[in-house]
Amino acid sequence: MSLRVAILGANGYGGSGLIRRLRRHPAVGTLALGSRSLAGRPVTEAWPHLAGLLEGTFTASEEALEGADVAFLATPHGATAPWVAAALDAGARVVDLSADSRLDPDTYRTWYGQHPHPETWEACRYGLVEAHRDELPGARVVAAPGCNATAVSLALLPLASARLLGEDPACTVVTGASGAGRAPAQPLHFSELDGNARAYKPAGTHRHLAEIEATLGRAAEQGRALRTHVPYHPHRVSLTPHLAPMTRGILATCTTRLTRDADQDALFELYEAHYANDPMVHVQEALPDTKAVAGSDRALVSLRVDPRDGRVSTFCVIDNLGKGAAGQAVQGFNVAFSHPETTALEMEAPWP
Amino acid sequence: MSLRVAILGANGYGGSGLIRRLRRHPAVGTLALGSRSLAGRPVTEAWPHLAGLLEGTFTASEEALEGADVAFLATPHGATAPWVAAALDAGARVVDLSADSRLDPDTYRTWYGQHPHPETWEACRYGLVEAHRDELPGARVVAAPGCNATAVSLALLPLASARLLGEDPACTVVTGASGAGRAPAQPLHFSELDGNARAYKPAGTHRHLAEIEATLGRAAEQGRALRTHVPYHPHRVSLTPHLAPMTRGILATCTTRLTRDADQDALFELYEAHYANDPMVHVQEALPDTKAVAGSDRALVSLRVDPRDGRVSTFCVIDNLGKGAAGQAVQGFNVAFSHPETTALEMEAPWP
Amino acid sequence: MSLRVAILGANGYGGSGLIRRLRRHPAVGTLALGSRSLAGRPVTEAWPHLAGLLEGTFTASEEALEGADVAFLATPHGATAPWVAAALDAGARVVDLSADSRLDPDTYRTWYGQHPHPETWEACRYGLVEAHRDELPGARVVAAPGCNATAVSLALLPLASARLLGEDPACTVVTGASGAGRAPAQPLHFSELDGNARAYKPAGTHRHLAEIEATLGRAAEQGRALRTHVPYHPHRVSLTPHLAPMTRGILATCTTRLTRDADQDALFELYEAHYANDPMVHVQEALPDTKAVAGSDRALVSLRVDPRDGRVSTFCVIDNLGKGAAGQAVQGFNVAFSHPETTALEMEAPWP
Amino acid sequence: MSLRVAILGANGYGGSGLIRRLRRHPAVGTLALGSRSLAGRPVTEAWPHLAGLLEGTFTASEEALEGADVAFLATPHGATAPWVAAALDAGARVVDLSADSRLDPDTYRTWYGQHPHPETWEACRYGLVEAHRDELPGARVVAAPGCNATAVSLALLPLASARLLGEDPACTVVTGASGAGRAPAQPLHFSELDGNARAYKPAGTHRHLAEIEATLGRAAEQGRALRTHVPYHPHRVSLTPHLAPMTRGILATCTTRLTRDADQDALFELYEAHYANDPMVHVQEALPDTKAVAGSDRALVSLRVDPRDGRVSTFCVIDNLGKGAAGQAVQGFNVAFSHPETTALEMEAPWP
Repeated sequence: MSLRVAILGANGYGGSGLIRRLRRHPAVGTLALGSRSLAGRPVTEAWPHLAGLLEGTFTASEEALEGADVAFLATPHGATAPWVAAALDAGARVVDLSADSRLDPDTYRTWYGQHPHPETWEACRYGLVEAHRDELPGARVVAAPGCNATAVSLALLPLASARLLGEDPACTVVTGASGAGRAPAQPLHFSELDGNARAYKPAGTHRHLAEIEATLGRAAEQGRALRTHVPYHPHRVSLTPHLAPMTRGILATCTTRLTRDADQDALFELYEAHYANDPMVHVQEALPDTKAVAGSDRALVSLRVDPRDGRVSTFCVIDNLGKGAAGQAVQGFNVAFSHPETTALEMEAPWP
Repeated sequence: MSLRVAILGANGYGGSGLIRRLRRHPAVGTLALGSRSLAGRPVTEAWPHLAGLLEGTFTASEEALEGADVAFLATPHGATAPWVAAALDAGARVVDLSADSRLDPDTYRTWYGQHPHPETWEACRYGLVEAHRDELPGARVVAAPGCNATAVSLALLPLASARLLGEDPACTVVTGASGAGRAPAQPLHFSELDGNARAYKPAGTHRHLAEIEATLGRAAEQGRALRTHVPYHPHRVSLTPHLAPMTRGILATCTTRLTRDADQDALFELYEAHYANDPMVHVQEALPDTKAVAGSDRALVSLRVDPRDGRVSTFCVIDNLGKGAAGQAVQGFNVAFSHPETTALEMEAPWP
Repeated sequence: MSLRVAILGANGYGGSGLIRRLRRHPAVGTLALGSRSLAGRPVTEAWPHLAGLLEGTFTASEEALEGADVAFLATPHGATAPWVAAALDAGARVVDLSADSRLDPDTYRTWYGQHPHPETWEACRYGLVEAHRDELPGARVVAAPGCNATAVSLALLPLASARLLGEDPACTVVTGASGAGRAPAQPLHFSELDGNARAYKPAGTHRHLAEIEATLGRAAEQGRALRTHVPYHPHRVSLTPHLAPMTRGILATCTTRLTRDADQDALFELYEAHYANDPMVHVQEALPDTKAVAGSDRALVSLRVDPRDGRVSTFCVIDNLGKGAAGQAVQGFNVAFSHPETTALEMEAPWP
Repeated sequence: MSLRVAILGANGYGGSGLIRRLRRHPAVGTLALGSRSLAGRPVTEAWPHLAGLLEGTFTASEEALEGADVAFLATPHGATAPWVAAALDAGARVVDLSADSRLDPDTYRTWYGQHPHPETWEACRYGLVEAHRDELPGARVVAAPGCNATAVSLALLPLASARLLGEDPACTVVTGASGAGRAPAQPLHFSELDGNARAYKPAGTHRHLAEIEATLGRAAEQGRALRTHVPYHPHRVSLTPHLAPMTRGILATCTTRLTRDADQDALFELYEAHYANDPMVHVQEALPDTKAVAGSDRALVSLRVDPRDGRVSTFCVIDNLGKGAAGQAVQGFNVAFSHPETTALEMEAPWP
């Protein structure tokens, strides 16, 4: 198989990760790099790390899409849905890294506003491979999950699938700056963020809540093999993201009561069993470091039970640009196209 | 007044902050700098920032204490209690930055092991000035609270004092590296912590829980003017600290149900009223940055109500070495000795 | 004395440092904060660290200048000269942090283009206090030196004044991000600068060269008490600045041959003697840390002789926003207005 | 070919990089991980990023060497020479990342003290592939160059080989913390290095000078294909290393006069031609970022001529743990064993 592949938004951080992985993917024949703002400019103008390695130029998005078998869309939400529709019309398949293919039109409207192309929803499959693996082969649109949603969902999925997850888990996330993208903005200015931590979008305002509550709600009803299009009841969670002075990494900490008592060992076994066949998730005793997955597409998961009250805290680290973006997108692509699941993925972070 | 003041542990980060503040304190006459490991060595050997400003040497701890009117103890828990006892015996008053004067001997034993000098407890007053101001004047031992305990307590005190605090608030803390002290340790090595975040001591294992639960428990029963020696019922909380790649700063995020409904405006007014007379605490609408208090002894507090379920998230930022250590110690000293409360404190962080 | 003082550009990093120092300066009566972009907006909108401490608003620049006795100009070069002229016309005195008052109009034209108000030059005195102290009292315009120029000049001045400085010293500077100001720009984006170092404006293109070469040239001819308006021959140097992932700090390293042999001890004595009466410069054996002056207005200077070839490397660290900007401006103001030189300056960095 | 390969010092940062590259090297059959301090312990105890990927334990160094065809030695200088001797005695070939195989015994003694096994020198070839490629095939001991030596040498080699390099180039290096290794040490403590830059080992005291001066001296006499064992005259340079708050990366800046005039374009062509056949070195117009090679084994080189005086500044960035350590070692191994030169090397840094 030798696919014609297009990346839109190839000048953003999602694009950088896709270029890295798809350049070495054995199924990728040609790779067109679309960028609205840098069309016609050398790729190395955006990406100094590719100097001497990749000599081409960015093309306009329309041009990049022409004749593509697969389109990876690393463009902003709202602006992406029209590209999904256009790609489907042209007979291409899509891996969408934006929010535009993740939610049914009603839920989307609640969190993002009116969806510009609700007709694409039917073609979409939610691309959290660990939960939706069975329905992804053949998918016309793989919706790569949000980075915070990935970390929180992986931290709580085994509890949800086992119907152990109590009401109102309190989830926090510590996240690096690259999740906010590459566009200059004062809060992301080095001098402002260095030595600084702050919460943002707390108290029910972060849009990734929609995905998290859908995934956990589905898991409670559907068990382990989730279906995007089966109706579900959201499982309410609280989410507080925190920005920390690091470039990559998400650490999700989720504290919850259980629906029935379970000790540390039983829960650890439950988690290990849940993820036993997931090559990109590792369950471990040690509390995980974000640095252990920086540059990698893996997730590390751990948990602790509070002996004083039986509440459990579960932990998940990912690289927001790896398992949280490009890595997850390629993982979803692999399953959708029946390549081996880990093809072209990053397994090992380059510590330190 | 011209006091003879001693600092023990003057070669640690707590000591560095005490030197800075006490050198300019108008009530301080002489300042002896005690250090076990560096006795006899120039102060600038430990503190490059004092080169050209402070030409003396460290003295042995015993020597530093001799003839002191006040002893600031910035030494490790367990090792500090004997110094408290010795100082009291010698007629000196004490500001203890360690954990050894914060908890009654029974509670101490639960969290730290047998207290070596339980007889000192009667002389101790818990030095969270905002809650214990009324009982501090004249105190023989001011117990400066732990850094995480300070941030979490300030975030929740107004709710607790108003009996609004629900069961089992879920508290997380994002903290900088300097809280772990100056001694080299592999997890604090630059190459290991740079670009890294991890949770530590979660699920009921962090010792600051004892202080937090005592303060919140007292507030529920005693209201606004807390007494160290009145029996109390701890208010159970969950605490997950996270280490982030920054030197200074603690951001506490506490998510809780309320005992009765209250909206954002009412809670904000409650917080503003609670801290109206506290010069070192500022309540603000904007979500606070740790950098806004780096190098300062102030706390910034904010809150948000989740409109979806009425849960409230409260936020507090401090500098762990300012309001979380040396600043708070000097604030307690000021009140205990009836100096103006803000004497020699740092008000303004030097952004950026 | 109770001066009416205006700061223009009060929403930039230079402005932040000026606010901090001038708020506590005993000679400052009123302080007007001018900002073109934020006129009418609360000061805390720009400066989170002032929340609860400073409740006013920014004013338009013209308004801030009205009735001012002294104007501190922390505005961009080119745009500042008109404010200098206007302030002088209105009878105010000026401390100019921009480049517009540092160079004679001919030299200015070479490096920055045509000077818009060459008539102001006569009123200007170059504000490197350590070299120009004698001519600053009464100055109508104090030209605060550039940050890199300050560090390199202080590293080499004793050699130049002693006519020991050889030809073509090779100077490099490692500098933090805040020197580039607060405006968002992609190379200063956290995700781009974190973990990154790069050279910029090398090979004779950095404009601070004009000041450095003037100062060293004057020193060779005038000795220790330099005069701004006496003609001089520039002393050619090479300068390579490097941006490093830190917020504050400049480390200048200057390697040069000497005009005659001198050993380490002799040079160290020369440096100590040269700066013996300079309260803001400390000469030390130990190689200096930028962190030892972060937040401070001092400079630390050291040197080493290469025993293999007699070349000497001299070192100077400053905080680019302290001795390199606001601190130096206030120091120059103090001398120009005959206040004690260190009034309201930051002496001690808050390590760590 | 299926080699039995041992890594000694596999628990250090050099070891981490070797594990990453050699695990995927097609010629490596078995990989023994030797560690003196962690023998018998799980590899993941040292390396959290390998959790779930590599389940083995470290072995004692002697055991790791047994039966090895090739030994990679990432152990400290002085302690490594005996392992070189032992490996050669056992018939193994060696890639030595320490300083012990880089210098002839006389030069070694000057910089490091008496060499414990001078008899090994005859078997050594200096492993800067770009300069010594022709003599490496079949080498019994490949001496991987020091990280600073690599950056400075690559920055100046084309000038030296063309006999353009003037006297006494002034070289500075900005380097990250990982070059100092993983052992905890106070100057490398996060709270001490964060926000800090300092010079270290200036003025002729850094031991990498011996290698740099040898390489440049050989190039002036031997041209492009250097020989380790041909006598040479060192080319004297000045070197000032600076530690900056980043984990990976070296930026070398070298400023020098030329022996004859040459303009920017001619020099750029010279550099491009010099490195035209070197897959791990890229010559570019843009001033290079260390981040562009973080995690990569490539070097980026650039230069600028000062139009004012004809001095040239040349720049080279590498990852000190990539081209500066494990990457270079594997590159040397590849050439010595006649594998394709870039086998198992990291080409593309994962920006950001």
